[in-house]
Amino acid sequence: MNLAHIARLLALFSLSFSAWGLVPLGMALLEDRGAFDGVRGSLAILVPGTLLAALMWIPGRRAKGELFRRDALVVVAVSWLLAGALGALPLWASGAIHTYDDAFFECVSGLTTTGATVLGTDNPTIEELPPSILMWRSLLQWLGGAGVVLMFTVLFSAFGVSSKSLLDSEAVGVAREDEKPRMHEQARHLIRLYAALTASCAVGYWLAGMNGFDALCHSQTTMATGGFSTRNQSVGAFQNLGVELVAVLFMFLAGTNFPLMVSVVRGHFDPRRFWANAEFRAYATLTLAFVLIVTLILWVWNVAMPDPVLRHTRDYGHPGQCLRDALFQVVSIQTSTGYGTCDFQNWPKPALYILVLGMLFGGCTSSTAGGLKIYRVLTCTRLIAHSLRTFIRPREIHRLRVGRDVISDAQLSAILTMLLLWILFVALGTLVLDLDPRLDPVSAFTASASMLGCTGPAITQVLHHLDGSFEIANPGGIDLGPYGGYGMLHGYAKIALSFLMILGRLEILAPLVVFFPSFWRK
Amino acid sequence: MNLAHIARLLALFSLSFSAWGLVPLGMALLEDRGAFDGVRGSLAILVPGTLLAALMWIPGRRAKGELFRRDALVVVAVSWLLAGALGALPLWASGAIHTYDDAFFECVSGLTTTGATVLGTDNPTIEELPPSILMWRSLLQWLGGAGVVLMFTVLFSAFGVSSKSLLDSEAVGVAREDEKPRMHEQARHLIRLYAALTASCAVGYWLAGMNGFDALCHSQTTMATGGFSTRNQSVGAFQNLGVELVAVLFMFLAGTNFPLMVSVVRGHFDPRRFWANAEFRAYATLTLAFVLIVTLILWVWNVAMPDPVLRHTRDYGHPGQCLRDALFQVVSIQTSTGYGTCDFQNWPKPALYILVLGMLFGGCTSSTAGGLKIYRVLTCTRLIAHSLRTFIRPREIHRLRVGRDVISDAQLSAILTMLLLWILFVALGTLVLDLDPRLDPVSAFTASASMLGCTGPAITQVLHHLDGSFEIANPGGIDLGPYGGYGMLHGYAKIALSFLMILGRLEILAPLVVFFPSFWRK
Repeated sequence: MNLAHIARLLALFSLSFSAWGLVPLGMALLEDRGAFDGVRGSLAILVPGTLLAALMWIPGRRAKGELFRRDALVVVAVSWLLAGALGALPLWASGAIHTYDDAFFECVSGLTTTGATVLGTDNPTIEELPPSILMWRSLLQWLGGAGVVLMFTVLFSAFGVSSKSLLDSEAVGVAREDEKPRMHEQARHLIRLYAALTASCAVGYWLAGMNGFDALCHSQTTMATGGFSTRNQSVGAFQNLGVELVAVLFMFLAGTNFPLMVSVVRGHFDPRRFWANAEFRAYATLTLAFVLIVTLILWVWNVAMPDPVLRHTRDYGHPGQCLRDALFQVVSIQTSTGYGTCDFQNWPKPALYILVLGMLFGGCTSSTAGGLKIYRVLTCTRLIAHSLRTFIRPREIHRLRVGRDVISDAQLSAILTMLLLWILFVALGTLVLDLDPRLDPVSAFTASASMLGCTGPAITQVLHHLDGSFEIANPGGIDLGPYGGYGMLHGYAKIALSFLMILGRLEILAPLVVFFPSFWRK
Repeated sequence: MNLAHIARLLALFSLSFSAWGLVPLGMALLEDRGAFDGVRGSLAILVPGTLLAALMWIPGRRAKGELFRRDALVVVAVSWLLAGALGALPLWASGAIHTYDDAFFECVSGLTTTGATVLGTDNPTIEELPPSILMWRSLLQWLGGAGVVLMFTVLFSAFGVSSKSLLDSEAVGVAREDEKPRMHEQARHLIRLYAALTASCAVGYWLAGMNGFDALCHSQTTMATGGFSTRNQSVGAFQNLGVELVAVLFMFLAGTNFPLMVSVVRGHFDPRRFWANAEFRAYATLTLAFVLIVTLILWVWNVAMPDPVLRHTRDYGHPGQCLRDALFQVVSIQTSTGYGTCDFQNWPKPALYILVLGMLFGGCTSSTAGGLKIYRVLTCTRLIAHSLRTFIRPREIHRLRVGRDVISDAQLSAILTMLLLWILFVALGTLVLDLDPRLDPVSAFTASASMLGCTGPAITQVLHHLDGSFEIANPGGIDLGPYGGYGMLHGYAKIALSFLMILGRLEILAPLVVFFPSFWRK
């Protein structure tokens, strides 16, 4: 272990992460000090963050030698915990969230771009918070989404770490080249694209009718596929078709492979190159199919079902309304954003199965989206087809392909390991949550999958009444849906979920190996 | 396709399967004709089975040429459907089951050694049926378990089909050699072992206090890991520790690799050779661990939980009672037998998670047990360990091993394909069942897994009351647990479940490929 080098990197990380506290500080100085003190909140990260950076700089200032793969993994794991611990301070010190562990959960949920919130039950509601704190929440997601990953890329490449050692451990695996200038350049392109898309999204929201502040906050959490909103009822509060369409467009883009977008934008601009990419093709097709199926389900259920138990509070008699809600919800869940424009928990069961499927599948690799990633799902379907073909005609030799790529056995093993670990951790998370007798097993399962996939909302079991209304069907009345929150869960459950979010965001392997003794052996 | 050859094999199969109808016929001639007519039931398979055999013998009598892999697959698929269709006739014609589709479900559940029953709700209860019909149910399982597979082995090897082409498609993959005499001999050994174990089991039951008829019926369904009983409350009705211990021993043996047992019994007898087998080691260790964990959970919950909602109707204050119930239920579910000595649905949630895990994992390969099979689960855990090691030290080269076997990439792909297909079909089954608004999602999921794993009982969600009692928590009050049944499900659900049982028993690939157009192309 090159401890000096690790300390140096963590010092730089601590300083550059804490410096973002200047944004809420600036805003807080201009706003009324009501029930919540944004100035105290902002100082609560600026001061300790700077001090920590200074402390770590002392051993780190004379760092020499190369940084190896294992050092890099330690930096990744520690800096995520560090960011979670520091980023929670403004939420807690401002009085926005009463306890530090709730603030930690909220901050991890932000940084991992999950979007699950503890606000609204024991804590104040989202709309009671001052702009400075709302901005900090959005900023956490924006920085988390691609930001933190890019920051790592730039920081590390500047310190001569091979790109592969780190990027293998990050959700957004960008470049494959090992040369520094190329890395640097690619990182710059990605940051520019991310910033440009965020700015366009903000303008789009503003043109559609949001005020400037809302547009700014939502554009950050849209491009990060995070899902934090400035309203209690998420994007549903705006009741604005234009806003929804802007959100859908940019959520979809945020779930698209970023290097692919960079190469299309920078090269001879040709949108057909998107379609030439097998993963994008599957992503677009799947999203469209899911939207159409859910639309159909909503409409058919509403029209054809004689049983009023299956009808909804919302009028889905008009196919346009079905399409509007289906489009928004499917894209929001599939890209792991987690915004809602309606409480989809009362939808017919088949529609919920589609949403859960979308949650599990997620967006493209090298995007800010979570979930298993389309590329992996595609590989799994190709593997099934391949095996069936081999079973029918064992003497014919085929290669396993996704698009033009031939999948090597090592890649296949890695993908299937990821799938196995996903199953394992979703099951463990379900068990931990289900131990709480106030919760139902369906909430436990969907919440666990939602956290590992960095989506946000879960799907609580509901009971339909004859008049079309519905109620939460667990004994505790805990609503983990798009308009609910995670505030009522026990402390141990929140810790377990925070762990799942970090695991999911870093694609499981990187944070997991740190727990194995053989990792620490020479 | 060698249609003549296929017809010839199906004729022989039809004849030899239907001939077993002589057993209930003999019994029925001796018993009172009460509400149920066993004679009519037995004739209902003997007559059409023989006629069908005769009809198919006409094109098949001059069969020439070799039988290829695809022909063999067609024979497998068709003969399972044929056995299901013929075997249902006695149940239906005797008046034991009112509708033919219910009888088909019951018969498929028997042949696949699942043990799910439709008796007891709309249909008569098990204890109302005459001995001849109860014997036929047990016989279906005994024949199904290893019987049908062995029958295939012998029949096919006599007709010069290479062992591999067929055995690849069967649950009990026995021999690897391609020579006929060796095949024949191995099949004879397996049949002898199976029969000897069944006889020993019957004697054991009888010595423990069962009457001769119950002992005979239960020994057949024990060795087949089937789970059909002659009592409404399964083995629990006997309230006999001796019976339970005999059941546990033989269920465990039935879940053990049969070729391994043959080789140990026939070679220089040395029980250490069991322990040298990695799969058996894992199977024994896992079973023991599950039993101890469940015992501990039952005991701790009962002693330490101040909340009476979590207490049970059964007195688990004595650790001996906890161990007794845990031992029986864990072994019964893990080996996919499905007997019950208590309604475990009211157990604490963590214990239910262990049972579901056992249901998914199943017994050893080449046993009569269902589930994913321990060997596959072991391979998955080895893959995870292997990937973590590679991730930590990418330059070290390791081989993926299970025990002494090196797992090739092709084997790994096959195993993981099976896992993916399992997930897919469990999910599809869950969706189909969950469409029924009378059912809860937990029942839907566990029933789907139980059918694909050929286990039998599912785990219905229950509501605990303050006085320690509990009730079924789904709107329809449908109990799919060990003392419940599948009779109340809709017809489409029963068809879907029958399909899942056959898929699971034949390890998915074989019955699935028949639905692909490329299978039928030249």
